[in-house]
Amino acid sequence: MANTTEARIHALVEERSAALRRKDAKGVVACQAADHVLYSLAPPLRIDDPGTAGLDDWFATWDGPIGYEVHDLGIVADGDVAFCHGLAHLTGTKTDGERADVWFRITLGLRRTADGWTIVHEHESVPFYMDGSLRAAVDLKP
Amino acid sequence: MANTTEARIHALVEERSAALRRKDAKGVVACQAADHVLYSLAPPLRIDDPGTAGLDDWFATWDGPIGYEVHDLGIVADGDVAFCHGLAHLTGTKTDGERADVWFRITLGLRRTADGWTIVHEHESVPFYMDGSLRAAVDLKP
Repeated sequence: MANTTEARIHALVEERSAALRRKDAKGVVACQAADHVLYSLAPPLRIDDPGTAGLDDWFATWDGPIGYEVHDLGIVADGDVAFCHGLAHLTGTKTDGERADVWFRITLGLRRTADGWTIVHEHESVPFYMDGSLRAAVDLKP
Repeated sequence: MANTTEARIHALVEERSAALRRKDAKGVVACQAADHVLYSLAPPLRIDDPGTAGLDDWFATWDGPIGYEVHDLGIVADGDVAFCHGLAHLTGTKTDGERADVWFRITLGLRRTADGWTIVHEHESVPFYMDGSLRAAVDLKP
């Protein structure tokens, strides 16, 4: 049972990653609950029930395909609640020609409903350098 | 039962906040499981089983008491697993005289053991400005 749950959550995370790779905002949002609370890489601090608009804007800043893989996924589940965390690797070329290759942390909170597992909370971040520069640490590798 | 679980997790989060306020590294770590995985405000990307050393170093950068409150705590729990998220408000004076007043996001993953609820995963962050500056958004208010 635990293995089945873990396999299903793993599949949901991979479904979300695949939607991001093909720039499919509806596909990403389909993995989320209606009361989804997002702590995104960009401000503001908190976004309630993010729709497809923010994702579509973000997808438009990329030229060609996006690489998006979640590594070292750790899943903790019991009953109808679970959380998981891992390191996301985002790659691609921005429309201004800049090559992106960023690792960031991702934590997901999940709930099981009659329709299966859904993501109700998402927290994505990079740390920042505490050397006075306050620069986001987008150059870290695991 | 759900209410009791929520009350216990709320109390654990407050116990952790109180330990941070009194600069009690052992008290903070006592709220964590041995296999705790930390995504901290500062690099690296991931810290496994953080002990008291990092906290003691951090506490030493503050002059006098620290203010630490978690607001808008949302708790989702079932069986022996839970996660919660909220906005932490950190205030105080650094040893260099600088006043700190920062809001950041915090997500906790929890598990219930024979000894009660414990924190197995912690993800803390501020977003960063995507205006080319890559500056950490430490000036946001909820």
